[in-house]
Amino acid sequence: MYSNQKSFSAIQDITPQFLACRQLSEELCQPLEIEDYGLQAVVETSPVKWHLAHTSWFFETFILKQFEIPFKNFNPKFEYLFNSYYNGVGEQYLRANRHLLSRPTVEEIYQYRRNVTERMVNLFNQKNLEQYAEIYQLTLLGINHEQQHQELLLTDLLYSWSFNPLFPQYQTQPLLEQKQANKSRWLKQEGRLIEIGADNKQAFYFDNETPRHKVHINPFKVANCLITNRQFLQFIEDSGYQRPEFWLSDGWATVNQNQWQAPLYWQKDGNNWYQYSLNGLVPLNMEAPVCHVSAYEADAYARWANARLLTEAEWEYLAQQQPIDGNFLESGLLVPAAANNSNSIEQLFGDVWEWTSSAYSAYSGFQASDGAIGEYNGKFMCNQLALRGGSCVTSRDHIRSSYRNFFYPDARWQFSGIRLAKNI
Amino acid sequence: MYSNQKSFSAIQDITPQFLACRQLSEELCQPLEIEDYGLQAVVETSPVKWHLAHTSWFFETFILKQFEIPFKNFNPKFEYLFNSYYNGVGEQYLRANRHLLSRPTVEEIYQYRRNVTERMVNLFNQKNLEQYAEIYQLTLLGINHEQQHQELLLTDLLYSWSFNPLFPQYQTQPLLEQKQANKSRWLKQEGRLIEIGADNKQAFYFDNETPRHKVHINPFKVANCLITNRQFLQFIEDSGYQRPEFWLSDGWATVNQNQWQAPLYWQKDGNNWYQYSLNGLVPLNMEAPVCHVSAYEADAYARWANARLLTEAEWEYLAQQQPIDGNFLESGLLVPAAANNSNSIEQLFGDVWEWTSSAYSAYSGFQASDGAIGEYNGKFMCNQLALRGGSCVTSRDHIRSSYRNFFYPDARWQFSGIRLAKNI
Amino acid sequence: MYSNQKSFSAIQDITPQFLACRQLSEELCQPLEIEDYGLQAVVETSPVKWHLAHTSWFFETFILKQFEIPFKNFNPKFEYLFNSYYNGVGEQYLRANRHLLSRPTVEEIYQYRRNVTERMVNLFNQKNLEQYAEIYQLTLLGINHEQQHQELLLTDLLYSWSFNPLFPQYQTQPLLEQKQANKSRWLKQEGRLIEIGADNKQAFYFDNETPRHKVHINPFKVANCLITNRQFLQFIEDSGYQRPEFWLSDGWATVNQNQWQAPLYWQKDGNNWYQYSLNGLVPLNMEAPVCHVSAYEADAYARWANARLLTEAEWEYLAQQQPIDGNFLESGLLVPAAANNSNSIEQLFGDVWEWTSSAYSAYSGFQASDGAIGEYNGKFMCNQLALRGGSCVTSRDHIRSSYRNFFYPDARWQFSGIRLAKNI
Amino acid sequence: MYSNQKSFSAIQDITPQFLACRQLSEELCQPLEIEDYGLQAVVETSPVKWHLAHTSWFFETFILKQFEIPFKNFNPKFEYLFNSYYNGVGEQYLRANRHLLSRPTVEEIYQYRRNVTERMVNLFNQKNLEQYAEIYQLTLLGINHEQQHQELLLTDLLYSWSFNPLFPQYQTQPLLEQKQANKSRWLKQEGRLIEIGADNKQAFYFDNETPRHKVHINPFKVANCLITNRQFLQFIEDSGYQRPEFWLSDGWATVNQNQWQAPLYWQKDGNNWYQYSLNGLVPLNMEAPVCHVSAYEADAYARWANARLLTEAEWEYLAQQQPIDGNFLESGLLVPAAANNSNSIEQLFGDVWEWTSSAYSAYSGFQASDGAIGEYNGKFMCNQLALRGGSCVTSRDHIRSSYRNFFYPDARWQFSGIRLAKNI
Repeated sequence: MYSNQKSFSAIQDITPQFLACRQLSEELCQPLEIEDYGLQAVVETSPVKWHLAHTSWFFETFILKQFEIPFKNFNPKFEYLFNSYYNGVGEQYLRANRHLLSRPTVEEIYQYRRNVTERMVNLFNQKNLEQYAEIYQLTLLGINHEQQHQELLLTDLLYSWSFNPLFPQYQTQPLLEQKQANKSRWLKQEGRLIEIGADNKQAFYFDNETPRHKVHINPFKVANCLITNRQFLQFIEDSGYQRPEFWLSDGWATVNQNQWQAPLYWQKDGNNWYQYSLNGLVPLNMEAPVCHVSAYEADAYARWANARLLTEAEWEYLAQQQPIDGNFLESGLLVPAAANNSNSIEQLFGDVWEWTSSAYSAYSGFQASDGAIGEYNGKFMCNQLALRGGSCVTSRDHIRSSYRNFFYPDARWQFSGIRLAKNI
Repeated sequence: MYSNQKSFSAIQDITPQFLACRQLSEELCQPLEIEDYGLQAVVETSPVKWHLAHTSWFFETFILKQFEIPFKNFNPKFEYLFNSYYNGVGEQYLRANRHLLSRPTVEEIYQYRRNVTERMVNLFNQKNLEQYAEIYQLTLLGINHEQQHQELLLTDLLYSWSFNPLFPQYQTQPLLEQKQANKSRWLKQEGRLIEIGADNKQAFYFDNETPRHKVHINPFKVANCLITNRQFLQFIEDSGYQRPEFWLSDGWATVNQNQWQAPLYWQKDGNNWYQYSLNGLVPLNMEAPVCHVSAYEADAYARWANARLLTEAEWEYLAQQQPIDGNFLESGLLVPAAANNSNSIEQLFGDVWEWTSSAYSAYSGFQASDGAIGEYNGKFMCNQLALRGGSCVTSRDHIRSSYRNFFYPDARWQFSGIRLAKNI
Repeated sequence: MYSNQKSFSAIQDITPQFLACRQLSEELCQPLEIEDYGLQAVVETSPVKWHLAHTSWFFETFILKQFEIPFKNFNPKFEYLFNSYYNGVGEQYLRANRHLLSRPTVEEIYQYRRNVTERMVNLFNQKNLEQYAEIYQLTLLGINHEQQHQELLLTDLLYSWSFNPLFPQYQTQPLLEQKQANKSRWLKQEGRLIEIGADNKQAFYFDNETPRHKVHINPFKVANCLITNRQFLQFIEDSGYQRPEFWLSDGWATVNQNQWQAPLYWQKDGNNWYQYSLNGLVPLNMEAPVCHVSAYEADAYARWANARLLTEAEWEYLAQQQPIDGNFLESGLLVPAAANNSNSIEQLFGDVWEWTSSAYSAYSGFQASDGAIGEYNGKFMCNQLALRGGSCVTSRDHIRSSYRNFFYPDARWQFSGIRLAKNI
Repeated sequence: MYSNQKSFSAIQDITPQFLACRQLSEELCQPLEIEDYGLQAVVETSPVKWHLAHTSWFFETFILKQFEIPFKNFNPKFEYLFNSYYNGVGEQYLRANRHLLSRPTVEEIYQYRRNVTERMVNLFNQKNLEQYAEIYQLTLLGINHEQQHQELLLTDLLYSWSFNPLFPQYQTQPLLEQKQANKSRWLKQEGRLIEIGADNKQAFYFDNETPRHKVHINPFKVANCLITNRQFLQFIEDSGYQRPEFWLSDGWATVNQNQWQAPLYWQKDGNNWYQYSLNGLVPLNMEAPVCHVSAYEADAYARWANARLLTEAEWEYLAQQQPIDGNFLESGLLVPAAANNSNSIEQLFGDVWEWTSSAYSAYSGFQASDGAIGEYNGKFMCNQLALRGGSCVTSRDHIRSSYRNFFYPDARWQFSGIRLAKNI
């Protein structure tokens, strides 16, 4: 179960939320040329086109196929083409080859989107349907799924564009107030037995956030702000990328194999650092949080700073005490922004996903959903690390304190950054 | 020097030939959607867009840069982006990443083409230019270069499209008269001392066809027709792909590693064979020449048939006695066609490139051209085999008996086929 | 710090323990031919020779280099040749090439061993040395280190030998009483707040077992026995290796890439299963615990059986209540043995390392040791899973309830097996 | 057929030649430790043990299996273990894993050798055997086969040892007279129609040297000496390894991928160059021929020197006029030696294998032998280049002017060097 049981009255207005979500995906593509929709730089990323189609496939496969009578699928081959990884649904087109699907064209995919959107709305309008509660829950899941792909759409596009020496620019850079350098403060936390995981008051959550369960945490200190580009530059200038003593063994191998010398998208021209972003190639904003680092870099930075990363439980405990507010997709910045120099905790939500030291694994008592949908989260609970808090390209209403994101520790193309903690 | 010295009168009409060539590249793209222009399935192939740009780059770099006064390059970054492999010109954008260049857009590349075409014509119109003879020769080279890329454009597009389960169709299949099965005849040839290589009567030739030189050939027999799909199917049904005794050692390794069981683009559905082509996915034409086989498959087939492939010298000797006629790009078929069942030699030109047993290497006395243009052919004279005769996607006026094409022996995406010979 | 502070009297008898450990390494090599000492099938394994040398290097580098006056190293080049992964000590000979070190010869490595052993004993005999306490602690670490390599020596040898169709036999198979099939029982456990990690009463522990800390566990059930070969065979016969629904995503990719269809060392001949082991190629013992499975296979088996693996904390909690007894190296079996069919928990120690679902990561408050020795455990805390309990090739006195072993989830050459748990 | 038909009298004394060959293989192993017999650094090389066994396997498989009555094979599993690449004989143990065969031991392989040698001599003594002529021919083939492996045994051993920082020394360096620098002279050759390939006067030849056939060569000049280390050093110092204009395209890719900066086994220590060889790590002998270069390096050097390599036909034409004399294995130097500064052609035989520009391919009219033995040479006629003349580790009586050796162009571990030619 992905969401809470609601009374009928509470669930009758899914249509506006659904339409807004569908519309946002398309609005995000406004700045693109048709040629941009097909790019796929590496197997881990997907073309914009594919994101647009796959999110429609999700509604068609998991809702319309079950509830639409009669089921009129848009194109029977799409079930295969736009299945991401659901073995329970059937075979999938080879992920690494998604960039080779010049057909269906962009226009055909927009037609597919309109078709699915319309059929979904028709389904919603059959209000006396017995299965309405289930449709509602699955639609909520589909909306949250599409929100994830909205973030990936931008993230993947930026990555593919970064291989182009013309450095395409998604938008004109908004004016960012250059705040003074923030000075991080350490905030002390007591040890205690806490509870983490989704609670019943939330409208929606993923299965991987369940069950809510007890965890014991020890006393620790947490930095009130994220690590900035300026701070990370000190690590670089202290030969951080050349000194094995700061690195996990796998991280050291990765750094050397890929010859990493700075975060992804950083470029040095003479003595000046630049950063490629959705706002184009711009001078590095020293006060902004460092972004596009792997967990290996985050961990090495922490060790260099005589600190460590937070665990998932510690992060969630802190987040439970905060409102969900921050620099999200809605701000339109599309880059992380400098902290406010307050004395309290900042930037916990938005800006960058915070790497934790916790492996992404099943909570005690976790049970994946039945059927193909059970593949959504559970089968990835190995070899990945949990990230928390959302980023500047995450929708605000997609996030909550129990939300768990996960990537392999060498991933850098996500909007991922660093917050430090210390043992007491 | 790539072409013969001509009197001034002979060279004054390069403009129509140039314009026709430039126009043909664009006409070949008429059936495409914008999304098709960017596909690149493997590093050996290039996107259509890139072919359109690179052929313009060639004129701009090797002619306009030298002769246009003042030189106004369209975009300084294109020198890097669209350089294929000329180290003498400078560094090159990574070949494997050409599919990531969503920008410049297709429309911008067409603008680039129009700009280069116009500037070239302006250059031609300055008739009293001292350097006209050199411009003429280089333009002829550029036209022949663009003709090669016209063939590659179709060849690469077919390959990229073949990964799409929707099997895009370039054109509607022309009505092919189903001729009766041809029966191959062996034609005896005497041994003798012959001459091969470009001779002075030709308007144009590449440096790799020079110098004309003596070669001694022994008596041999040659098949008057190409091997057909029907004949190749017998090899398959005789477990040809499973029996190591027919294969070169490297070929056997390649077959097993790639699990080849039929020529590229063949598909079996139940008991019926289909072939993907520029005319879409169609039933295999049993009388047509087998196409899209590697040199390893050609060699294995020959050994299975107690025969061998021709050498370059033998092929050229036969071709010197034939008119340059056959199923070329101009026929509009875009697939190889059945033979005519004559008693004399057929299909030597057009239909499919014929794999020879000859390594592509320097002729005795070969001297590559000076400067970056010397990289055109010479530096590839290792590890590749010579193919002869052109194909159904080669322009008729691009071919001659001394023309040498070359590919690695495992290449299958070219329009390549098999003609047999035997020792006497 | 790797071990407890002891009074001087308690530490005065390290010599016999040291000598016994040094002797055991050499006794384990008695069945070998000189040719066997150099084998290295994959980079993760090391030649027997190298294990013998590296364990000597450890004493020479971390104790003699610091305390021997004057320091007379056996061969200055050995510091480089036999350093495993300690960047703090210096560069290392490429791990994948260890099998290329035919020199020093086996005899020279035995000389090296004798030399180091002798110098260590001389050091112990200088009893009034101020640094004696530190030497004692480091020697305990060195002994435990050598014990780990004794296990690896056998594990790696078996793996390298398995590529030899002659199936070399390390020892004659001991007579194994064929017990009746055991029937696993589920033992219920209450949820509670427990403590795990090394406590002060232990003579020695590794840094990765510290600090002792609180963990909350939920109620669960645990199987009293390990999964047997017979049980695992049912999974195979139920197409377990062909059904994606049981597998983690990375596991499914691994299974397909490597075409796994049974545990490592299993072979089918007609209808009969055989297993290669240190006792040679023998019929599969159906009542013995399944061994040489990856974490992916362990997890897939558990999901197939509607169960799960234990967490580290759950395992340790169970083990804290048990004596350290079981089928260890000392039994001389060198294969896991059938359970006793009791009603209580069995096989927790010895037989096979039990894969847990817990990522091998730092305990809350963990601090790696200073200097190069800090690289022993800490830098591997990423991408690996914890295994618990020791195996039939582990020394009994090497193990304790807080002991943490760790391997990548795809590792199969270790003596690793499966114990199930369930949520209540 | 690999050799000439001889009268019965001529063939009656194969025994001494056979025994001498068998003995030489074992004598070459005298300096080795048992540990050295098993090394295999890369798949292209084989362990010494394997060479010793495979050459015995060859006699057992191709002669004893056919003629010995009754056939008593030494160990039935050896047919599989020591088959190199003869698919006609059956499956082969994976080539890359030969280093994992610690069993059979070195001593067991010597027993195998003695057994085969004895059985062969017994076979020879049955003089009235009808099949004696065939046995004679096959034995000659087996002897020549073993001679090839004697060279490979040393070549492969040197390569494997080169990974050992202790730099094992096969023999003490013989005193090499330091001759003055030789000055190469160009010797003019007329163009003509020549014959190459094995002729009937030779006692033995391989099938790939047949048939003798006519080739037309153009006028050319040839350097009377091999390129020396001093000369090659000038290429290095002129940035030869950094300038793409000298390199074949595949060569340039290889140089960059492998970061080649000097011939294999060269090492720079401060300003001094050293070379690892069978005589250990010694200062580079400036007057000796450069050795252990790939065809890519040979070709690049030639282009840098405004010259080219010889073709096979040109080389053979020159060699037909020379006695077979030079620095072969029998000299005991085991390294190439400086030229004599004569005015005539030198070093054509021995010292180093000379890379030619000719692809290793079938001579016009070539027919591979029947059966599995036909796999000896023919199936490798693709992607390799011909080398000529033998080296300092080739037996003198193994070589002739028509002898064709072949390796991939990137091979450097052979004793291969450079002779220049020029067009006239």
